[in-house]
Amino acid sequence: MRFTNGGVCAPQGFKASGMHVGVKSRDLSKKDVGLIVSDVDCTTAAVYTKNVVKSAHIHVDIEHLKDNKARAVIVNSGNANACAPNDIVNAQRMCDAVAAKLGCESEDVLVASTGVIGQELRIERIEENVGELVDMLTHDDKGSDGAACAIMTTDTVKKEYAIETVIGGQMIIIGGIAKGSGMIHPNMGTMLCFITTDCAVSHEMLNDALHEAVNVSFNRVSVDGDMSTNDTCLIMANGEADNACITAKGEDYDEFVAALTRLCTRLAIDIASDGEGAKHLITCQVRNAKTESEAETISKSVISSTLTKAAIFGCDANWGRVVCAMGYSGVDFDVNKVNVTFSSGAGSIAVCQNGHGLEFDEDLAKKILTEHDITIDVDMADGEAECTCWGCDITYDYIKINGDYRT
Amino acid sequence: MRFTNGGVCAPQGFKASGMHVGVKSRDLSKKDVGLIVSDVDCTTAAVYTKNVVKSAHIHVDIEHLKDNKARAVIVNSGNANACAPNDIVNAQRMCDAVAAKLGCESEDVLVASTGVIGQELRIERIEENVGELVDMLTHDDKGSDGAACAIMTTDTVKKEYAIETVIGGQMIIIGGIAKGSGMIHPNMGTMLCFITTDCAVSHEMLNDALHEAVNVSFNRVSVDGDMSTNDTCLIMANGEADNACITAKGEDYDEFVAALTRLCTRLAIDIASDGEGAKHLITCQVRNAKTESEAETISKSVISSTLTKAAIFGCDANWGRVVCAMGYSGVDFDVNKVNVTFSSGAGSIAVCQNGHGLEFDEDLAKKILTEHDITIDVDMADGEAECTCWGCDITYDYIKINGDYRT
Repeated sequence: MRFTNGGVCAPQGFKASGMHVGVKSRDLSKKDVGLIVSDVDCTTAAVYTKNVVKSAHIHVDIEHLKDNKARAVIVNSGNANACAPNDIVNAQRMCDAVAAKLGCESEDVLVASTGVIGQELRIERIEENVGELVDMLTHDDKGSDGAACAIMTTDTVKKEYAIETVIGGQMIIIGGIAKGSGMIHPNMGTMLCFITTDCAVSHEMLNDALHEAVNVSFNRVSVDGDMSTNDTCLIMANGEADNACITAKGEDYDEFVAALTRLCTRLAIDIASDGEGAKHLITCQVRNAKTESEAETISKSVISSTLTKAAIFGCDANWGRVVCAMGYSGVDFDVNKVNVTFSSGAGSIAVCQNGHGLEFDEDLAKKILTEHDITIDVDMADGEAECTCWGCDITYDYIKINGDYRT
Repeated sequence: MRFTNGGVCAPQGFKASGMHVGVKSRDLSKKDVGLIVSDVDCTTAAVYTKNVVKSAHIHVDIEHLKDNKARAVIVNSGNANACAPNDIVNAQRMCDAVAAKLGCESEDVLVASTGVIGQELRIERIEENVGELVDMLTHDDKGSDGAACAIMTTDTVKKEYAIETVIGGQMIIIGGIAKGSGMIHPNMGTMLCFITTDCAVSHEMLNDALHEAVNVSFNRVSVDGDMSTNDTCLIMANGEADNACITAKGEDYDEFVAALTRLCTRLAIDIASDGEGAKHLITCQVRNAKTESEAETISKSVISSTLTKAAIFGCDANWGRVVCAMGYSGVDFDVNKVNVTFSSGAGSIAVCQNGHGLEFDEDLAKKILTEHDITIDVDMADGEAECTCWGCDITYDYIKINGDYRT
């Protein structure tokens, strides 16, 4: 198993493209519509936001995935198409436009949107340009790059990976692109993610694998505690790798889940690291907990704590914020067993032992916390389970970005 | 029923004081220890944080309130005395010092702390100065002011009210002081609050009344979603008003709860308005909901949403953030019935009708949102229940304050 290039175009039989049509802004350098197409029908699974207010694209995708099959997905950024005039109609029109050009059924096209809530989508701009978008489709790095860039909103870097492994004697590849920077909270990390694979896998196994992978990757990331209306993670499997189709749990399934999980985890960490305005990636590893579930709850509470995030922004070793966030997580534990250590590339420093503050070198702590990647290690000394979650600090820029998001 | 002056010294038989002893800083102008004393024993009730990590003072208070009686409460700011070396011993020593000087049992003295977690309390500074603190006790505005100022941390204004009403033919007074600015989340609004009353009331009724009042006041405020380790709200009733003791539910109890609720609500709104770095008080009233509980859950979700808070900071009528926060609140509702209106002293503007965006005058919206007090009105059009919660915006100053809280 190893990472490779090519993103969503790395698996056989997938093409992608991205372009500027003017949904988002007049800045021609900003792509705002992306397309991913498989040469053949794909077994497809999806995970959506649990927000009861859902973007129109989710309602349309649920309809279109009743047969668990898809050929293509079109996505726009700049407009969430949620709570917007004609939102359902416009989501459907995006699918119709792609289907007409590809010569497939509209039900075989999926759709996703991300951006401002409540404003009418400029559907004509998409319809006018779908022909060119389809003509631009390529099965190479450039195609995946186009789609990866087209889904970015406040993201500062594109998120794109591919991973290859051997299943049933055949090399299979999984590729993925994701966007997500603000409105991120575990359940699932507010974002769009599109995954392609040439692995042959039944819908049931694909669906199980996606849920397993999302639960330990995107669902362990928080930027700001706000769960969006548009979260969508799609995986399309076209079977072009010619492996014996995975139809049951076993060695092949496990390998597929392992590869998918590694891919999703990389994308998830990129999302946390590129959190709106973030200066630090915060990794919180909770060890020696009673159960993995308790470790996860505690870790999520720490990375979601506004006060902890502000302390990390200030490079301040204020571990009291960490212990406080653990305390209101809902998990019952003995604080007198808890040990907390901050670490980064610049070193490691123990700040709390058995629930009480240690004397520590403030200069060294500051040096450690000045690095970009910070790890908060929490040792519960109360079991053998562990869990790691990812977040980022809260900065002036986060507030600047979100104080003026619509303009 | 009307508000009056004097804070915790307004009820008969209560004295208070506050002074600088050097727990918090060397700035002599900053009081950091306060004391409230009743002439006679008080029936006393308390509500504490639900954080499993609790300040030592809470453990000591639980012990001292086993008989539901207290004479005095001493409080320091600048050090939370939580997860700190010798925390329990030092909380106990604060009580011992007051008891020795007052000539009462240590068990009749309560204690509270607020400030940085994990650092050892400078207990000697408190012990050395308790004599002077007791000598300074006065039954007037100055006494209450001293105590109210002594509990402030990042608060920019003191929170102090008194309310009087007639119960059983006798004028009774309830006075209260509170602190709270950061680490505020409903459950209960992270804070300290000390309430005095000369009303005669049994412990059972006092306890019920306190819970009723806290649930609809402090538990409806959020500044940053972080629930502290130190939250404490104490009420001491010395019976000096000579009313027939309230020992059961009925007219007198209802009047007492009404007055107590008005007092707590004023203090709670002050806490939200003085949220760390806040430029806006946000009032979210959810109307026409199926149940009060659902209205409360939705309202709390809106005032706790970081993205909504950032939008209000930017005076941006981004109602999509409001609908999104409603959607992840956990309440199931039909977004197609929801109407949202922003209002302030500068006017009112409808921005969302039946779950979809309205065209609106952006200049007027900006003018409305530039005011300090902003109301977000959410009409669920799905019932007759309502609930109002209070919060504040998130600002650069919040991050500045909390990026460097310990120094």
